Amino acid sequence: MKRDFVSIDDLGDDEVRELFRVASEMAPRLREWSHLCPGRILASLFYEPSTRTRLSFESAMSRLGGGVISAPDMRTSSAAKGETLADTVRVVGGSYADIIALRHPAEGSARIAARYADVPVVNAGDGSHEHPTQTLCDLYSLYAEKGRIEGLDVVLCGDLRFSRTVHSFAYALARFGANVALIAHRGFEMPEYVLRRLRDRYRHEPQRLEAEEFGSLASRADAVYFTPQNPHQLSLFTESAVASVAKFDALYVTRPQNERPGAEEREGPYPRIDRGSLSGRFRDTFVMHPLPRMNEIAYDLDQDPRSLYFKQAARGVPVRMALLAFLLGVLELRASPPRPETVGEVVRGRDGGRCPNATCITNVESRYLESEFRVERRAPLRATCALCESVIEVAFVGCSSTRVYHREGSGDVRRIKAEHLVLFDSEDRAKRAGFSAAAR
Amino acid sequence: MKRDFVSIDDLGDDEVRELFRVASEMAPRLREWSHLCPGRILASLFYEPSTRTRLSFESAMSRLGGGVISAPDMRTSSAAKGETLADTVRVVGGSYADIIALRHPAEGSARIAARYADVPVVNAGDGSHEHPTQTLCDLYSLYAEKGRIEGLDVVLCGDLRFSRTVHSFAYALARFGANVALIAHRGFEMPEYVLRRLRDRYRHEPQRLEAEEFGSLASRADAVYFTPQNPHQLSLFTESAVASVAKFDALYVTRPQNERPGAEEREGPYPRIDRGSLSGRFRDTFVMHPLPRMNEIAYDLDQDPRSLYFKQAARGVPVRMALLAFLLGVLELRASPPRPETVGEVVRGRDGGRCPNATCITNVESRYLESEFRVERRAPLRATCALCESVIEVAFVGCSSTRVYHREGSGDVRRIKAEHLVLFDSEDRAKRAGFSAAAR
Amino acid sequence: MKRDFVSIDDLGDDEVRELFRVASEMAPRLREWSHLCPGRILASLFYEPSTRTRLSFESAMSRLGGGVISAPDMRTSSAAKGETLADTVRVVGGSYADIIALRHPAEGSARIAARYADVPVVNAGDGSHEHPTQTLCDLYSLYAEKGRIEGLDVVLCGDLRFSRTVHSFAYALARFGANVALIAHRGFEMPEYVLRRLRDRYRHEPQRLEAEEFGSLASRADAVYFTPQNPHQLSLFTESAVASVAKFDALYVTRPQNERPGAEEREGPYPRIDRGSLSGRFRDTFVMHPLPRMNEIAYDLDQDPRSLYFKQAARGVPVRMALLAFLLGVLELRASPPRPETVGEVVRGRDGGRCPNATCITNVESRYLESEFRVERRAPLRATCALCESVIEVAFVGCSSTRVYHREGSGDVRRIKAEHLVLFDSEDRAKRAGFSAAAR
Repeated sequence: MKRDFVSIDDLGDDEVRELFRVASEMAPRLREWSHLCPGRILASLFYEPSTRTRLSFESAMSRLGGGVISAPDMRTSSAAKGETLADTVRVVGGSYADIIALRHPAEGSARIAARYADVPVVNAGDGSHEHPTQTLCDLYSLYAEKGRIEGLDVVLCGDLRFSRTVHSFAYALARFGANVALIAHRGFEMPEYVLRRLRDRYRHEPQRLEAEEFGSLASRADAVYFTPQNPHQLSLFTESAVASVAKFDALYVTRPQNERPGAEEREGPYPRIDRGSLSGRFRDTFVMHPLPRMNEIAYDLDQDPRSLYFKQAARGVPVRMALLAFLLGVLELRASPPRPETVGEVVRGRDGGRCPNATCITNVESRYLESEFRVERRAPLRATCALCESVIEVAFVGCSSTRVYHREGSGDVRRIKAEHLVLFDSEDRAKRAGFSAAAR
Repeated sequence: MKRDFVSIDDLGDDEVRELFRVASEMAPRLREWSHLCPGRILASLFYEPSTRTRLSFESAMSRLGGGVISAPDMRTSSAAKGETLADTVRVVGGSYADIIALRHPAEGSARIAARYADVPVVNAGDGSHEHPTQTLCDLYSLYAEKGRIEGLDVVLCGDLRFSRTVHSFAYALARFGANVALIAHRGFEMPEYVLRRLRDRYRHEPQRLEAEEFGSLASRADAVYFTPQNPHQLSLFTESAVASVAKFDALYVTRPQNERPGAEEREGPYPRIDRGSLSGRFRDTFVMHPLPRMNEIAYDLDQDPRSLYFKQAARGVPVRMALLAFLLGVLELRASPPRPETVGEVVRGRDGGRCPNATCITNVESRYLESEFRVERRAPLRATCALCESVIEVAFVGCSSTRVYHREGSGDVRRIKAEHLVLFDSEDRAKRAGFSAAAR
Repeated sequence: MKRDFVSIDDLGDDEVRELFRVASEMAPRLREWSHLCPGRILASLFYEPSTRTRLSFESAMSRLGGGVISAPDMRTSSAAKGETLADTVRVVGGSYADIIALRHPAEGSARIAARYADVPVVNAGDGSHEHPTQTLCDLYSLYAEKGRIEGLDVVLCGDLRFSRTVHSFAYALARFGANVALIAHRGFEMPEYVLRRLRDRYRHEPQRLEAEEFGSLASRADAVYFTPQNPHQLSLFTESAVASVAKFDALYVTRPQNERPGAEEREGPYPRIDRGSLSGRFRDTFVMHPLPRMNEIAYDLDQDPRSLYFKQAARGVPVRMALLAFLLGVLELRASPPRPETVGEVVRGRDGGRCPNATCITNVESRYLESEFRVERRAPLRATCALCESVIEVAFVGCSSTRVYHREGSGDVRRIKAEHLVLFDSEDRAKRAGFSAAAR
């Protein structure tokens, strides 16, 4: 059975560790693996431009001796002729390519591509949803420096609200046993649904460090010192809750996502890390950044041995080499694949309406896709879109067998069989779908 | 002597059959041919985007072990600097590449490129003129399923007026002895010049099936049932002339060419094929489509073993592999090349005016190209552009030796030597070119 | 230590000659060198489109058996996210690629890229500054025909003002001992700074041929005859100063740089060379052109054995193959590298203001780059930008140790230590930088 890499959870814990060992072996001699994939072809299908990611994948495939067919701007071509993603990946995966790296602006698109393509699909970014090879590379970069992830103390800093990268990295750190601390730029705190998932899935509660004014904290030796972009307004971040951490292993900084709606709410200067920031508990801390950076990391750090961001980018190639070789079946791992996700019951169909996220693939390509919700628990009912993971508001729940609907929270909801569940955001929609109110 | 593939007629009948046998051998083990073309390079020169076609060529070259240099958007580069196609292909074919795949919006461009380039040129689409590898792949797909083309009954359906693909496919089917039947969307019938060419060159008269109203035909078991896009308006197509055909081998559906001028004249819903359409004489019929599809084929057909369109796309790679290997001289065929086209006399020069097709390459690149007409017969005089095949209206015919012109249809026209023929669309043009009226 | 190719002066004279010998060996059997660079990767980073140059590099790398990762349109991707050139080349040169070919609109950009990247950088054109592989190929093309450069008589013709190509070619010809003659289109004469550099560095004074009217020169047998674009206005160019040259070896023609500001000042029809032009002292003259051409070379010359421009383009591939193999360390040369440029003293820092060229990389990426001037001589003081080579106007000179400034031309300027030099274009700027006037 083919393996895809749409989410980092598509790899088991031991598989990840094993891939890291392979990547470590490949990294020092990148040019010596071109015997692994001759005759194999990678297709880069990029529906939005991302030159760095594309080049990293294509370099990895090239270094493995494979061929590359590249579509850096799919949006203006096939898509412009009205072709669906499902059709495109069936054609490209039919005989053109042996593996597909997909970048697409719709959340959930990579999972759909993986379903329809006959060859493995690697998610190179699906909207603001996931970018799992970035996460894998970030994790590997820590592993390459420290030899482990378990027990490391990692601070995530900057725009924690809109950065997809930082959400995925937080999950991955928690999953592999690292301790996460957060320093959000004011107004750009980590969203509640991310914190909930950290709690629910990994039983992890990140430590939150708050930004405070310069004066009150200047004297504390272990303060994190940020040079703001405006040099006359300094600010400091620290917090007492992390007093137990003697020193942090890594500081992961993100750039401001200025292009995202809501970004204008940002207050004050964005944090800027320079050599001066790395003192106190940060004196032995590696500085990480997914790049490209704006001004949040000073150029004077580039020569500092604690700056990890260029190494981090460089390590993307061996990690992707190991991943591609594995997915192509050229590299076998001893570890077992993860057990299939069994969380929740899946509810399909149109009766219950569509995902509320307009850029979810089920809405973008509604011509052939129906909505697909995952009911994570029944009481209180918690549901998400099975593709883009948006939270689904459910007010009424129907049974497709009896054609009766019940108010969410009523005891009747629990008795509906999984395959008969229909979710409604309003009573009106339930009625329009031809369901009747339950007798009271 | 180098071989080009500008038109499907550039390959002899036996050459086509032999290439199909090679493609059949390559198809099941696509990754095992990378020893064939190492060191060889394909240049993809695309003056208009066509990602699917480009990737198919590049995949084929990659699978043969060759290199690819790719210009997916030539129009914004060299062409923008005012370079002619002739200069570009001389440079690229000079040492950059060993073979060129050209996509260009001007009709006849590929033939010009083939003349100027030192290396083989493959036509990957020249305006609305030809796209011969598409035709070759379509034909191969039938061959791969049926083991032959001769004697097959193939229905062409949809927009038969603007679809270049369907015209070329019709010629190829006729050439290889298949029987063609037509179901045109109303107002989008097969043009007269296509029918004439089928008649003149291949002595083939396609059977025409007419669309009729639902009611009168519902009871006929062998009706072709189309689900129109608007589910409340059904329409049926059938015809008594094909009563002799017990069952059709293939149904080739085209998408509406909405971007073409005149497309707004289309009446009624465009045909839509679904599983229900495949009954009666269509019960064992393969459904083909050049892709991308719009709505003319329902998604419910995708899993049906009679749907051939994804296989058809997949087969593009082995066919292009065989073709590239042949044109590069790596693969030798035993069959003889076709005899050079001897139809008609060629009339060159500017005296007689230019091709009436504004997007003919002789008009687009008039800086160095002169008009070039082919006189297919003298009485009545029938002439076409030798590059784009547009019909040339001829009212007067001159002799460049005597500088005298004659009314078309007069007996004098037959006495002019081939190398002295000059064609005029009006008496005025003849006079302006310095010719005198024949004495009466 | 890694070698870059940012300027043609980055190669020593004997290195150039040795590369030409290697290229000559590669040229006749282009497909037989794919064993040289397997596993190596070239990154094409093009911040402005130049398909021809890009394809030439990519073909060269492919023919060497290496891989290519291609970014034909960097401007719309990483750069759009605000990433600096320094960051981009550090990432791409980190593990993605083993060598970088860079095209960038800012003058001096390739030198900056070479400083920051860990891998060799080849300048594929930095704004209007240099395009050294073009020059290398032009020179090689002469060498391939004549077996030498020394002593050849070469005429440069057309737009000598704006054509970067022709400036670089003039330097290279002078450096390797050829004699240069100039026929400028009126108003588009060779700029003074180019003539000065030819004089200063290579002790070469090109012969200047002037355009004269048709009538007075028609009878001279050795006149250069140009067919102007407007056929009714003919013009001729010749000059007595070159009477000593019996016949010219090559005529290098450039296209009008119509896109450059100032181009509208051009007077009269642009020269056009045809077969008729090649008489008299030009009867055995090779016609060269960097392509693409507009109308400055007639199509009737294409079949003439004296036309070299298509061969010239074809020779770009073996020259780039030899260069890439050398820079990648795969090909070792016996010749020694050039001694590091010791011309002048370098003045860094912001006190003295910035380079006056708005598209100099130090201005385009001022976020992390400071200005960098080269003082070529002290009295009279002559300074250029060390990156884009623009002339720097210096009115006052400061000493960063005493914080005193002096009027340019005063004897005190000579006594300032090289590392303390600060250059000012006005007294006002000196004061604003906190310097005081010297006591008089």
